[in-house]
Amino acid sequence: MGLQSFFNPKSVAVIGASRQKGKVGYEILMNLVAGGYAGKIFPINPKADDIEGLKCYPDLPSLGETPDLVIVIVPAQFVAAVMEECAKARVKSMIIITAGFKEVGPEGKRLEEEVVRIARRAGIRFIGPNCLGVISPSHKLNASFGGDLPVPGSIAYISQSGALLAAILDLANANGIGFSSLVSIGNKADVNELDLIEAFGSQRETKVIAGYLENITDGNAFVREAEIISGKKPILLMKSGGTEAGAKAASSHTGSLAGGEVAYESAFQRAGVIRCESIKEQFDFAQAFASQPLPKGPKVAVITNAGGPGIMAADAIEQKGLTFARLSDETKAKLAQKLPAAANVHNPVDVLGDALADRYESATEIVLDDPNVDSAIVLLTPQAMTQAKETAEAVAKIAKKKGKPVLACFLGAGKVAAGLQVLRQSGIPQYDSPESAVTTLHAMSEYVRWRTRPKRVVRLFSVNRRKVESIVERHLRQGLLDIGEAEAKDIIEAYGFATPKGSIATTAEQAANIAQQLGFPVVLKIWSPDILHKSDVGGVKVGLNSEQQVRDAFDLMMYRIPKKKPEANILGVLVQEMVRTSGKEVIIGMHRDPRFGPLMMFGMGGIMVEVLKDVAFYLAPLTAEDAKQMLVNTKTYQILKGVRGQEGVDIDAIAEGLQRVSQLVTEFPEIKEMDINPYVVGAPGTTPIAVDARISLEKK
Amino acid sequence: MGLQSFFNPKSVAVIGASRQKGKVGYEILMNLVAGGYAGKIFPINPKADDIEGLKCYPDLPSLGETPDLVIVIVPAQFVAAVMEECAKARVKSMIIITAGFKEVGPEGKRLEEEVVRIARRAGIRFIGPNCLGVISPSHKLNASFGGDLPVPGSIAYISQSGALLAAILDLANANGIGFSSLVSIGNKADVNELDLIEAFGSQRETKVIAGYLENITDGNAFVREAEIISGKKPILLMKSGGTEAGAKAASSHTGSLAGGEVAYESAFQRAGVIRCESIKEQFDFAQAFASQPLPKGPKVAVITNAGGPGIMAADAIEQKGLTFARLSDETKAKLAQKLPAAANVHNPVDVLGDALADRYESATEIVLDDPNVDSAIVLLTPQAMTQAKETAEAVAKIAKKKGKPVLACFLGAGKVAAGLQVLRQSGIPQYDSPESAVTTLHAMSEYVRWRTRPKRVVRLFSVNRRKVESIVERHLRQGLLDIGEAEAKDIIEAYGFATPKGSIATTAEQAANIAQQLGFPVVLKIWSPDILHKSDVGGVKVGLNSEQQVRDAFDLMMYRIPKKKPEANILGVLVQEMVRTSGKEVIIGMHRDPRFGPLMMFGMGGIMVEVLKDVAFYLAPLTAEDAKQMLVNTKTYQILKGVRGQEGVDIDAIAEGLQRVSQLVTEFPEIKEMDINPYVVGAPGTTPIAVDARISLEKK
Repeated sequence: MGLQSFFNPKSVAVIGASRQKGKVGYEILMNLVAGGYAGKIFPINPKADDIEGLKCYPDLPSLGETPDLVIVIVPAQFVAAVMEECAKARVKSMIIITAGFKEVGPEGKRLEEEVVRIARRAGIRFIGPNCLGVISPSHKLNASFGGDLPVPGSIAYISQSGALLAAILDLANANGIGFSSLVSIGNKADVNELDLIEAFGSQRETKVIAGYLENITDGNAFVREAEIISGKKPILLMKSGGTEAGAKAASSHTGSLAGGEVAYESAFQRAGVIRCESIKEQFDFAQAFASQPLPKGPKVAVITNAGGPGIMAADAIEQKGLTFARLSDETKAKLAQKLPAAANVHNPVDVLGDALADRYESATEIVLDDPNVDSAIVLLTPQAMTQAKETAEAVAKIAKKKGKPVLACFLGAGKVAAGLQVLRQSGIPQYDSPESAVTTLHAMSEYVRWRTRPKRVVRLFSVNRRKVESIVERHLRQGLLDIGEAEAKDIIEAYGFATPKGSIATTAEQAANIAQQLGFPVVLKIWSPDILHKSDVGGVKVGLNSEQQVRDAFDLMMYRIPKKKPEANILGVLVQEMVRTSGKEVIIGMHRDPRFGPLMMFGMGGIMVEVLKDVAFYLAPLTAEDAKQMLVNTKTYQILKGVRGQEGVDIDAIAEGLQRVSQLVTEFPEIKEMDINPYVVGAPGTTPIAVDARISLEKK
Repeated sequence: MGLQSFFNPKSVAVIGASRQKGKVGYEILMNLVAGGYAGKIFPINPKADDIEGLKCYPDLPSLGETPDLVIVIVPAQFVAAVMEECAKARVKSMIIITAGFKEVGPEGKRLEEEVVRIARRAGIRFIGPNCLGVISPSHKLNASFGGDLPVPGSIAYISQSGALLAAILDLANANGIGFSSLVSIGNKADVNELDLIEAFGSQRETKVIAGYLENITDGNAFVREAEIISGKKPILLMKSGGTEAGAKAASSHTGSLAGGEVAYESAFQRAGVIRCESIKEQFDFAQAFASQPLPKGPKVAVITNAGGPGIMAADAIEQKGLTFARLSDETKAKLAQKLPAAANVHNPVDVLGDALADRYESATEIVLDDPNVDSAIVLLTPQAMTQAKETAEAVAKIAKKKGKPVLACFLGAGKVAAGLQVLRQSGIPQYDSPESAVTTLHAMSEYVRWRTRPKRVVRLFSVNRRKVESIVERHLRQGLLDIGEAEAKDIIEAYGFATPKGSIATTAEQAANIAQQLGFPVVLKIWSPDILHKSDVGGVKVGLNSEQQVRDAFDLMMYRIPKKKPEANILGVLVQEMVRTSGKEVIIGMHRDPRFGPLMMFGMGGIMVEVLKDVAFYLAPLTAEDAKQMLVNTKTYQILKGVRGQEGVDIDAIAEGLQRVSQLVTEFPEIKEMDINPYVVGAPGTTPIAVDARISLEKK
């Protein structure tokens, strides 16, 4: 990655440096100086000889060298010219602080595009415009007007909101939270969130990547790359919503149930990104990830000097789905030896209100030694004898030795202040409530579960791709974006789905003959490219049991439907075998998200989808595990497995169906949406039938 | 209420006052003095002449007067004797700090019971034992060893955990949060949470009652009284779980789905108690309730100087189900006049990053004047020009005039510190994130919704109570706690339920005759007090269509069942009409919670209950609104209303069924559990049928 010059430049030029206090061009320069930046600083301002004692230069050529990093603060209309100058001077990295671009309207957008064009041509990477700048505490670089340089740490922060970054900086500085870097990405016209996530992914001083985003520039690349980086370090993102256009209006089940947020959710899940609900939660998580080892499992022990908070922690552990650790007999015996008789040696271990630091120390050590314990929360309330400071020291000492995460929750303020300071200095994260500590451990163990997931292997089925190609191409050539039922079934048959047998009849006699060959009962469905909702026009007739019934139904359709839909081009009637309904009817669908691509859907027909909205989404391509997990994520799964004596259906067959559709829509990006509905699945071993399918295309 | 002496005593005696620093008997005395308590203080210690200059007394009689309040710190084994002395001296109010009672085991429990006995006899009310004491800032009374006296305020706090109270006190003192009173209730052997809630309910200086509880002493009294007090001031409770015994093992649907927490949840809902998830949330809520007027409705406006936090607030408003206020055209025009062109005059109103206090002032005033706005959140991020302090002053000034709740969320720390102080001093609650502010407004508007609920009128149906009495009495007399199907149906028929017609047959011929009279098809069910699960022994046969089928089924049951259950006393066979199954099958149930009494349940048969656990609970007695709300609270409701063309069923009939069972179980406390399952409900206007019922009793 070529972004290292943004964080550790050998020299920095400030184009638009100002002598005037309060101006951004002054503040940034002073922040650079005040931060203790050790490289060369070149203020550039043709109208000044010096600024606060720093020699000023009229322009880039006069520097006599090419600065590693250029910060631009000139008004928007001059930025393109400055970019040209930088190109000439072979500058490679720039931060454009200046606002007044895309965010103000079409004219600004044009300006921004011009700046991007020049930069691309010259091979310049730039952050911004419309941003607060870059802060890199380990290199004493404060190239921003966001606030004072924080202490160095191992959290990298990326923010799409400058104001939020300033607030975070202010909060972090008040609480002594350290950062490796902070970047305000502004309009992200060039360098975007993913570039930075990649840069921080390989940056040694960064252990945790965190950020606030309002959107993601390139969905597919994000998922691909973030998945790799999440395998090395946790990525913690806050993503605020806003309404995502595009994903709303849709004719299919899948489309109407999927929204932009569903795709983001799936993308984050796939990539192992941990989504945070608030700044507080993000910092709760970040501090634990930055300072503590990952837990080996979900078993949490609690050590406390008061019952109430212990119960609160236990409640939260149960609610979050973590495991309340059961201490071994050996552990309980050891605790009984070290603690007073009235103490509770079961989890939550109560060292009692008069516990001094030594009791906490013994209890923490004994509990962490128990192989049934994966992590510990140390709760402390300020009571008469409580030694907050000494307890913090003791806990930190033990925690360092044991290789298991230890989180502290010292309740109170003034009376525990000295303890909180020790915790901070010794890298034990502190939480303001038992619930926050538990939520953090939950995030850590979910991350561990993600990291240890099986390797993703997408099965490739042998299919008749050529056949689908010809149908899709013909439709697109003819401008037909909705594929009719018969050909939609041809497509899914080509990808291995069984569909009901049947043929098109153009006369009543032919219909009766086909029915006779199929065997009764049969279904008749009107066949017309212009009729999507067949039932609405009386175009479906089920349970026909004789040739006569078939002939009658055919003639009635031919008589009635043209009256209802005079404009429809009726090509005939589909005569189809009736599918046994002993199985369960499920829906397999796909909706192509504009940002993240094909989003697979699974749900069960009837009330489960229509009333309960019990559906699962996941981004294609699906592995067998993904497909299975989609099923498991629905309540429908309980029904499919078989309830109360009812036999279950072939779960693997549904999972395979999902994978086959996943392959289809991955191989054909022209498919915009599709539903197989109903997909009738019977007992294990029987062949599921795709009774109906709907596919719509889009021009690529 | 006679509890005023606990908060505003004219004189306080400390029995067990100590000269030794660090001892509780010393600390409490010093806290009393340090708090500036203006009444007389009598340290009682026969071995000391004075403590830190305060004259010491050997015993109560030597005081020459009866102290208003006595604090006891002597060891547990002497407390009963002290209580006797107090009784003699006509003391009326005591705080027993001493631990070593119920919480340490049977011996302590015995001691505690003795103390209670003496107190009751003498008409003494006492708080404790095993508590931290009482703090009443407005009367400068710190009768505790919990910490320093906080500033006076309007929040009263009750805690069942002393340690938690100490932590809260420490936190509150660090943040300048004021209290009217704080009470550590310890083992609550006499004065319990409800006594205090009632006392605070009529205490002028208390506007908000908050507390942390692990259990509630008297469930019924709590619901009754708390409902009255909630109508005057909000009650905010944290309730930690633990496993509630009793409610777990149960044979009925209702019993197995109800847990202790469900009953607490219902009780809080009934009583208008606002349940808080954490200490932080509780203080977030308490501060808004204490300082702000209640919102008239759910419409929230947001004023911000940065886009990001504005979006976060908007997301939270949508998620919480509040309404994002639509500003009127007039408001938007006024905003446009006062704000720069680039500002956003739609909600969230963006006053831009360079906004000074005046822009916030205008925007807040204009927005609050809009009748479409019920409440406002003012967000501020520290940017270069931001005037946190002046903005806080301006917002507070406007808020005071407008009579609508205004919540602030100034993000950051050092840079907004002066602003935060102004907010605190002027009673504008401040939140650390937009989400917390929104969650608080949601709690406020839910409280308003509760306060403005329709008056509860429980309908009394005309029933045959005598008949039920005789069945119940006979069963109890004979020690039969499970009521058989036939008599269970007699009971519900007596309360107005229609059940399938039928009679008991003792011979095959008689069965055939009954069937012929009922009309075919019929159902046969074995009738034996010893067979509860009839299907399991082949004791149910449905869909019998002729006399011969009835005779055959009868004889087969008589032949087979005695072989399977030789010990069962078989009284005959119930011949019953078959209920049309065109309706929906729902379940009406009741489980008597040991603490809160009859807990009604509603659910829909089949997967809705069995797989999806889609049930609603509410405490009896039910009003028509309660019953309707129970239905609405389930997803099943969507199905009952009619989905996708399917006709809906008679919702009111189900609600009436719930109310009738509610009346039955209220009038018969001997009924421990019951289910009507299935209760078959058809189209509006048709009579629902209670096909099966199960009732079990308990001795009262």
